[in-house]
Amino acid sequence: MSERTLVSQLQSREDGPVSVSGWVETVRDQKKVQFVILRDETGAVQLVNPATRPDPEASGQDADALALTALISELSTGTFLTVTGDLKHDERVKLGGVEIKIASLDIAASALPETPIAADSGLDKRMDWRFIDLRQRRNALIFRISTTLEHAMRSYWIERDYVELHTPKLMDSPAEGNAELFALEYFGDQTAYLAQSPQHYKQMAQAAGFGKIFEIGDVFRADPSFTSRHATEFTSVDAEISWIDSYEDVAAMQEELIATAFAAVKEKHGAEIEELFGQTVEVPTLPFPRIPLAEAREIVKARGYEIPRTDGDLDPEGERQVSAHVKETYGSDFVFVTDYHPEIRPFYHMRNAETGLTNSYDLLYRGTEITTGAQREHRIDVLEAQALEKGLSLEGLAHYLDFFRYGVPPHGGFGMGLARVLMLMLGQDSIREVTFLFRGPTRLAP
Amino acid sequence: MSERTLVSQLQSREDGPVSVSGWVETVRDQKKVQFVILRDETGAVQLVNPATRPDPEASGQDADALALTALISELSTGTFLTVTGDLKHDERVKLGGVEIKIASLDIAASALPETPIAADSGLDKRMDWRFIDLRQRRNALIFRISTTLEHAMRSYWIERDYVELHTPKLMDSPAEGNAELFALEYFGDQTAYLAQSPQHYKQMAQAAGFGKIFEIGDVFRADPSFTSRHATEFTSVDAEISWIDSYEDVAAMQEELIATAFAAVKEKHGAEIEELFGQTVEVPTLPFPRIPLAEAREIVKARGYEIPRTDGDLDPEGERQVSAHVKETYGSDFVFVTDYHPEIRPFYHMRNAETGLTNSYDLLYRGTEITTGAQREHRIDVLEAQALEKGLSLEGLAHYLDFFRYGVPPHGGFGMGLARVLMLMLGQDSIREVTFLFRGPTRLAP
Repeated sequence: MSERTLVSQLQSREDGPVSVSGWVETVRDQKKVQFVILRDETGAVQLVNPATRPDPEASGQDADALALTALISELSTGTFLTVTGDLKHDERVKLGGVEIKIASLDIAASALPETPIAADSGLDKRMDWRFIDLRQRRNALIFRISTTLEHAMRSYWIERDYVELHTPKLMDSPAEGNAELFALEYFGDQTAYLAQSPQHYKQMAQAAGFGKIFEIGDVFRADPSFTSRHATEFTSVDAEISWIDSYEDVAAMQEELIATAFAAVKEKHGAEIEELFGQTVEVPTLPFPRIPLAEAREIVKARGYEIPRTDGDLDPEGERQVSAHVKETYGSDFVFVTDYHPEIRPFYHMRNAETGLTNSYDLLYRGTEITTGAQREHRIDVLEAQALEKGLSLEGLAHYLDFFRYGVPPHGGFGMGLARVLMLMLGQDSIREVTFLFRGPTRLAP
Repeated sequence: MSERTLVSQLQSREDGPVSVSGWVETVRDQKKVQFVILRDETGAVQLVNPATRPDPEASGQDADALALTALISELSTGTFLTVTGDLKHDERVKLGGVEIKIASLDIAASALPETPIAADSGLDKRMDWRFIDLRQRRNALIFRISTTLEHAMRSYWIERDYVELHTPKLMDSPAEGNAELFALEYFGDQTAYLAQSPQHYKQMAQAAGFGKIFEIGDVFRADPSFTSRHATEFTSVDAEISWIDSYEDVAAMQEELIATAFAAVKEKHGAEIEELFGQTVEVPTLPFPRIPLAEAREIVKARGYEIPRTDGDLDPEGERQVSAHVKETYGSDFVFVTDYHPEIRPFYHMRNAETGLTNSYDLLYRGTEITTGAQREHRIDVLEAQALEKGLSLEGLAHYLDFFRYGVPPHGGFGMGLARVLMLMLGQDSIREVTFLFRGPTRLAP
């Protein structure tokens, strides 16, 4: 590759010849001097050119200087170019204290003159032009944060000998019998379904004796919701571990994982997140508070909110109230709500023999559910009975149930929505803002 | 969690009480002594119990000892259990030089007595019972190798400030106009297609100014092939970088990436791969040889193989011949074949102005193509002309073409099939062996 200097490297570089590549953010085309703000993936720098305007009365004007000035005058926002010139440190330059005097300018690809969106355009319009929207520093930062968050989680697991899986997204049966499934014709006479979660397959890995596994991958929900928390395709962070005594082992792993990953984000991006999002990344204190669901509902009631749901679960406002209580009482952004009734949990959650409640939890972060975790039922007779109780067909679950007929250790795990974590960490009000390309009921493009 | 010792930790542990958890691999139920080989995710250990058989003539037999002996006699292969007992180092024990005398045995889940497959069952049958097949040490190892390989690649990229993406797999148009696309009904009146590659979206990230990105994720091909190298869903390793001068910049990154990842695999699993697969993991020497396609075809011809294809490409046997030549001549397992004719390349590959050939390559590893890489055409007028030349509709490509209208830097990248790399590294003859759950035209389950 050519000798390219990243904008972030300019400050520590000595004055002298330099070459930078990026896109035009703004042009200030003054009569006597031209300024271009060039941005690359690491920052922005001011380029300067003393304008040489055609003067019919002047003789011997420098043709190159005239051409360069004209070229800069015509630069449109978003044009990608490479500039070589003289780097000069100058404290008066607000943007990083450096400036480059343009010697030559090479356009890689010109942008059309009218940019279809601005930073303050509506979300839907910005999504139409997502590639331009992502040129904004804070939007691009989101995906660097996501990269750091994921890498810290994977590193946490890999240091502890977890196996990374890629489970199939095409499957032959509706699995959990849920209506929110995408179906497709598969080579003529077959029907395939898109996986809503890697649930069954990560449990299969336990029957295979893998012990500890994780997967970060896409899942699909034919969910017609238009809320700020739902998507038809999203990245799910999943783990599953064997030989647990209870869901507490899963919760303990997850909270340590989150604390580790948040610490990595804070270290690498904390200052920029503070600057661009006005949010302080807090590394949570362990353990997170645990509150049984029944108690959580009492807390919500005592705070004056009447949950309209009749199934005994929390609703979004109830979740916000529980989180507010926990923040006020324990100073924690996170809380595990535990002991859900089987009616509001899938058939494969193990139930407590004494209470009849499931050995499961939801993890709330800043008022929103980001995870469901549970110990799974691994006893085939109990599992079949629970499936039948939910009205599921054992035939449709045949492959899944086989996993339990040939031996499986006690196990449990969780699934966590990556975009929800990012949304809440960065104080955003929709997962659309933190998803590279959002997919919803009316959004399949670009 | 309970105090569990992994089998791999036993050798370095002092004699004394210990608890292990795993599954029954074999039982040798001799008259006077019983042996159980217990396997967990880290290894296998011999458990021993002096048999106490019911003896009508003996008086005062130990009821617990009788029960334990009976329990062990009934153990079926695949039963998951926890055993506590006395660890004893004994050089005569071939399996790791340690043995555990069983004190108590707690069954977590019994397996049905007849295991439906054996290690030497046919591949298709083993895939039917994949969770049992994966209990074999060498099959489980594949996914630990895959984990190490992926983590080394991700770490390579992240140390170099790449952004990790999760691009959508649901899209609104057939993109490359290819027939091998899965289509599905999307909320009634819409049609969605499953992405065959993240190609367009990783290029979008370049228009967004992300600079360097990667993605490891699932892609889908409605390809009716039944070869050992094809699947309808597989994990694709993709990268895309900006401001390249030619595809050489992409190739140089990819070969360094591979060398780094292979070194990590060799260090962590080299000995076990040698033992279980009879393969030596070789860290490749850089640079890999480069051979233009036309020259590669001459080499194949000179070796006495006539390629039946008339489109000027290599066929699988041709690829093997080129690789054999390169191995004999340069000692390399890898070779970049370059300069493909536009007719056998997608419309978005940039073409060399002088030769008319594409600025692209295939990477062959041990005789099989594992990657296509290229510099992309980023000039909108040229790109449109090339799309039309291929008979594509500009309307169907509208969103994609927009990326190039508002500025985009010169860029390129590659896509690599994870399973192909693993298959070839481990000397396997099908990607089915190295895929957690293979998906093909007649395989959607388990």
